[in-house]
Amino acid sequence: MEYQTGVKKKDTLEITELLNAKTGEAVKVNGAVHTIRDMGTVAFVILRKREGLLQCVYEEGSAAFDLKEIKEASTLEVEGVLEQNEKAPNGIEIRMKKVKILSQPEDEMMPLAISKWKLNTSLEAKLNYRSISLRNIRERAKFRIQEGLTRAFRDFLYSQEFTEIHTPKIGAKSAEGGANLFKLEYFHRPAVLQQSPQFYKQMMVGVFETAPVFRAEKHNTKRHLNEYTSLDFEMGYIDGFEDIMGMETGFLQYAMEFLKKDYARELKILNVELPKADQIPAVKFSEIKELVAEKYNHKMRNPFDLEPEEEVLIGKYAKEEWGSDFVFVTHYPSKKRPFYAMDDPEDPKYTLSFDLLFRGLEITTGGQRIHDYQTLLKKIEARGMTTEGMDQYLA
Amino acid sequence: MEYQTGVKKKDTLEITELLNAKTGEAVKVNGAVHTIRDMGTVAFVILRKREGLLQCVYEEGSAAFDLKEIKEASTLEVEGVLEQNEKAPNGIEIRMKKVKILSQPEDEMMPLAISKWKLNTSLEAKLNYRSISLRNIRERAKFRIQEGLTRAFRDFLYSQEFTEIHTPKIGAKSAEGGANLFKLEYFHRPAVLQQSPQFYKQMMVGVFETAPVFRAEKHNTKRHLNEYTSLDFEMGYIDGFEDIMGMETGFLQYAMEFLKKDYARELKILNVELPKADQIPAVKFSEIKELVAEKYNHKMRNPFDLEPEEEVLIGKYAKEEWGSDFVFVTHYPSKKRPFYAMDDPEDPKYTLSFDLLFRGLEITTGGQRIHDYQTLLKKIEARGMTTEGMDQYLA
Repeated sequence: MEYQTGVKKKDTLEITELLNAKTGEAVKVNGAVHTIRDMGTVAFVILRKREGLLQCVYEEGSAAFDLKEIKEASTLEVEGVLEQNEKAPNGIEIRMKKVKILSQPEDEMMPLAISKWKLNTSLEAKLNYRSISLRNIRERAKFRIQEGLTRAFRDFLYSQEFTEIHTPKIGAKSAEGGANLFKLEYFHRPAVLQQSPQFYKQMMVGVFETAPVFRAEKHNTKRHLNEYTSLDFEMGYIDGFEDIMGMETGFLQYAMEFLKKDYARELKILNVELPKADQIPAVKFSEIKELVAEKYNHKMRNPFDLEPEEEVLIGKYAKEEWGSDFVFVTHYPSKKRPFYAMDDPEDPKYTLSFDLLFRGLEITTGGQRIHDYQTLLKKIEARGMTTEGMDQYLA
Repeated sequence: MEYQTGVKKKDTLEITELLNAKTGEAVKVNGAVHTIRDMGTVAFVILRKREGLLQCVYEEGSAAFDLKEIKEASTLEVEGVLEQNEKAPNGIEIRMKKVKILSQPEDEMMPLAISKWKLNTSLEAKLNYRSISLRNIRERAKFRIQEGLTRAFRDFLYSQEFTEIHTPKIGAKSAEGGANLFKLEYFHRPAVLQQSPQFYKQMMVGVFETAPVFRAEKHNTKRHLNEYTSLDFEMGYIDGFEDIMGMETGFLQYAMEFLKKDYARELKILNVELPKADQIPAVKFSEIKELVAEKYNHKMRNPFDLEPEEEVLIGKYAKEEWGSDFVFVTHYPSKKRPFYAMDDPEDPKYTLSFDLLFRGLEITTGGQRIHDYQTLLKKIEARGMTTEGMDQYLA
């Protein structure tokens, strides 16, 4: 028997640690071989590490190994001496003394040129070689930003005293009802994959979830995904659905600051300028449709529907008129919203609901829910739906 | 158009805010009616709020409403005066002046007595009325602890520079291979729900995920669940599988401190004493089997398998001999582990792997993976498996 006492200290250094080490110091590092530039008597072996690229210099005669032993895409442990070099990434390099090969690629030729700054290849090729394309520095940075957004969502809602939940993904019935459901067999009984944690979060309130949702839509547009990570929250005791938009605005403000602070490296790699979220315009569905129809000479086909083209124009309008990348479109038509959406008492053709558009693309949907049992039953009936399978929700 | 500028300040106070307010102050609060104790001319209306219970006092004549208007399970907004009362929860109470009823229950009788301290009912009844049983203070606290553990897992791994990932749950093939898969149709092609993010996380390394996994096991034991939230991490550049146990020990140490600090209220409600994780014994599979067989006079049936009964005895042994609720059991037999597990070079009948047991129950599984392509191919072949559907994993 031996005791485990916690995280084991490694003798290999990360880039941040190297930046704090002394010039001339003997150091040990590990990483994957990103590229090898062989200049004859000297060669640059660039390692890819968690924090970015690290230049290692091989000089014939001063290293205890042959350069030919190393291949691109190998992983190595390198021992050497730390030196300053302002031309190298982060201004440092390692003069190689010894090398230990941890793993070798099976083929010398990689199917994608991942060491290029921009991976100039099709989305299809990227997806077909996902484990390889993700090694590209820019590809990787996109997923770090994704991490930052999810993390900011949770941190912000914890700070607002929401509770995180984990709801079942296999269910007997789905929240939104109807089509687009993946069906499966659950021990000889029919089941579906949840499109949304809607019913569950409504049963609890003051909760949030960051988890996959499933939608059986044949997708070949950026509006459709069969599976994605949904960021959901549900709040109670609201004075109106403006409280929900306020909470979401608060999240976006928090998230932009968080990315700026903790993901500066990735933002720089991707050359991204963060949008402002200090004030987000909120405008009624019927009103903005008229505004864009007029300004852009767009023919409105259906007053109760929003075409993708109109969403783009709304994004353009918000930017031009209000200087905002975000815009809340409020009071969606009742027939375009699920049965649990609360109708506007001032005009029941519309609901107390909203979408948030970012640069002309819908990124969230929200609204006030009906909290009265009889009102809910009446709306279910009026829509020709049944309460079958909804016992828990209606309880 | 109106601007949304962030989280809207509420004029209703939470318990923490009330504890910082002045005695005699006029305050507004909201909450659900937990219980009503009617003593005749005075009544105690206990509100259930996010942070716990709040006592409101109704006195005939001094309130501008009739007590009969209020039902248990209603939600209310109460205006009144804050007073000290050491017999009340948190030492404070609200003398009620005005009340606004936000929602009413449809039935006066609740199917479960949720206001009792302990919900003395079957698991089945709790699950059948989930949205109601979760209102019980103790039931709720369990899910907060669950939140705390997931949160600690993520926070710890962020601090160790892991990247959070979100992997697909619908797949063509599963990591573990074989049985226990939920099958579904994916646009006329066969698909399965993932049992584990194993393949994906191995393709990336230095990553973690907290997401649902699916296992089609008929469950009626506490060892089987069809769906649960799995906390997974995968680290690279390890010197041995002890590094993984070290990282997990580090997480457990962090998690216990985090719960102690941020979830003290819930720990107190559930009367939970946290286990120690400062040092966790790690013992070989073959060795501990013999140790428990000897100490507890247990007949060992199969030297290459661990029965649930043996796990319980190992937990007992670790507690009695080493004073630990946790114990790592290392070097599991090769035939009990998936093909990607690395065999022990000193004895290939066993693997460089471990399970963590907590009080006699397996809570995690881990180990070193094969990182060499040819070794992996040989093991796949030796097991009579094929590489079909594994192209991305093997790339």
